Amino acid sequence: MNIRTIDWKNNSVRIIDQTRLPQKLVYININKLEGLCRAIKILQVRGAPALGAAAALGVYLGVRNYPGSDWPGFSRKLSAVAKHIAESRPTARNLFWGIERACLAALRNNQLPVAKIKQIILAEGKKIMQEDASSCRRIGFYGAKLLKHNSRVLTICNAGILATVDYGTALGVIYSACTQGKKIKVFSCETRPLLQGSRLSTWELYKKGVDVTMIADNTAASLMAEGKVDLVITGADRIAANGDSANKIGTSNLAILCQYHKIPFYIAAPVSTFDFNIKSGKDIKIEMRNSREITSILFKKEISPSGANVLNPAFDVTASHLISGIITDKGIIRPPYIKNINRISKGNKCV
Amino acid sequence: MNIRTIDWKNNSVRIIDQTRLPQKLVYININKLEGLCRAIKILQVRGAPALGAAAALGVYLGVRNYPGSDWPGFSRKLSAVAKHIAESRPTARNLFWGIERACLAALRNNQLPVAKIKQIILAEGKKIMQEDASSCRRIGFYGAKLLKHNSRVLTICNAGILATVDYGTALGVIYSACTQGKKIKVFSCETRPLLQGSRLSTWELYKKGVDVTMIADNTAASLMAEGKVDLVITGADRIAANGDSANKIGTSNLAILCQYHKIPFYIAAPVSTFDFNIKSGKDIKIEMRNSREITSILFKKEISPSGANVLNPAFDVTASHLISGIITDKGIIRPPYIKNINRISKGNKCV
Repeated sequence: MNIRTIDWKNNSVRIIDQTRLPQKLVYININKLEGLCRAIKILQVRGAPALGAAAALGVYLGVRNYPGSDWPGFSRKLSAVAKHIAESRPTARNLFWGIERACLAALRNNQLPVAKIKQIILAEGKKIMQEDASSCRRIGFYGAKLLKHNSRVLTICNAGILATVDYGTALGVIYSACTQGKKIKVFSCETRPLLQGSRLSTWELYKKGVDVTMIADNTAASLMAEGKVDLVITGADRIAANGDSANKIGTSNLAILCQYHKIPFYIAAPVSTFDFNIKSGKDIKIEMRNSREITSILFKKEISPSGANVLNPAFDVTASHLISGIITDKGIIRPPYIKNINRISKGNKCV
Repeated sequence: MNIRTIDWKNNSVRIIDQTRLPQKLVYININKLEGLCRAIKILQVRGAPALGAAAALGVYLGVRNYPGSDWPGFSRKLSAVAKHIAESRPTARNLFWGIERACLAALRNNQLPVAKIKQIILAEGKKIMQEDASSCRRIGFYGAKLLKHNSRVLTICNAGILATVDYGTALGVIYSACTQGKKIKVFSCETRPLLQGSRLSTWELYKKGVDVTMIADNTAASLMAEGKVDLVITGADRIAANGDSANKIGTSNLAILCQYHKIPFYIAAPVSTFDFNIKSGKDIKIEMRNSREITSILFKKEISPSGANVLNPAFDVTASHLISGIITDKGIIRPPYIKNINRISKGNKCV
């Protein structure tokens, strides 16, 4: 079964509407910037690497109907579009990286006619999708070495096919190990509030024939205490220069449980998730989302008294000292992180 | 607002149907053993101390229509009823303690006419309710000393009015501190899968005018990292002789987070929750519940692909070395637990 989370089809961005899963696999075509920003905000498309591609393609959607042929005017339009997409969600580094890639491609070619520059932006978006597909496979290649036959891996949220173009980061590691003939058992934390673990990860792992068991997020600690988890692998939304990693709320929880139970804890993410400009996790902006994600289940059944206070951060930051390694498309980065991430920032591979 | 979770009214057990909260406060009257066992199984009545009362009253419901007047026959009936109630749920010690209290009251008076013994059993059930009300207030009295003005307390599940007859254990500590004029801020973990935190704790704290904020269970770690939690207090379902404590799944998770973040972690429970006969948490039977609690939300909306594996333990065990103290109706038990719990088992107060 081949699933492609995001693609460019019929002059539109085609995405899987992830709010409809697991009940229905529905593709939607988006041909306007507004539609794309909305899709990002309501998580029809989500996952840091997929957001990188969505953002770059979104830049093209935003500028393609610009009527003028002058670079200064086009450049102003480009900035406005970039700003608009950047305001959709704050935490995932890849979203901003995708915007920057698209804008830089335009800037580098600003001597060309505007019509040509538009095509260059679209090409950059397509290139990001290709790169993501191959970078996820490299992450899978490096990460699979960590998994033995019969390894039991726990994960949270969705860092799989549905978080990338077509393969996954944390789940890509699992798919890669399975391709090598290793039998892998996966525990998928359901991931409240929006249940990406049960709705998305369980769905894709199940479709791919991987042995997956759903658990409430609360069950991770007792599974570990019973010796049923060999390692934890999660994705990341933004990684600071010291290795502190923002990911789905609950991730730092798992990392602390791993330290206590002496279980390795890995992050899997492409280099585009690193934010080399920020020193530590303290500088990562954490998105606060609508309280209804907590007070109701998937915006349907109310599960709490009306009027109660709610706190709903979408992400948390895992301190780098809790991370055994960061599985990237350039190899596995190990401590000391400041030194080794600095190497990566200069385009080097991992040692 | 006075709420009474369980009572004896009109020759029936009157309980709040907790599956209807927070939408509706509905009282139901149960006058048959089967109805009571079902209410326990489907969590219309839940919470270890409330189950102690329910179990004892259930013994009366089960035997009151016994037609004979002979002790041997009545005694066999009593055993059968006791066994039946004991099979409803396995983990909460108080349930078994309630059954034992009712049966022992009968046994001690087996020279009396059967009609009289029946009344003694009912009286024992009523006495357990009275004792619970006062024991929770003593827990509140001892525990409130741990809370300062403006303390921020995090809790999981419901160890409040709705888990007891009318006051609560962990939440009783908070109510007691509030009565002393201290302002307390509470973070209520929603408590997947059955959401007792959002549905029940948030509801009663809100009704009582306590400042309560709901969070996804996953948010506990980041709140602690931000320095927003001063202490954690939870209830318990069964406490072993070494202090290992079974409570709602996710509790051991919080205890490990507390150790990491150097935050005190307390259990609040009456002495009836202790199982002096078991040495450690390894011997506590953990109830495994229906997978639909995970694959759907409150048995309504499906949130996962059908056919996926699910693991749904209702409780976990927190190792005693992670527990700062156990707030009981006889004072706060501190380490060394084996020695100090042994004192309590002999009817002594805490030192």
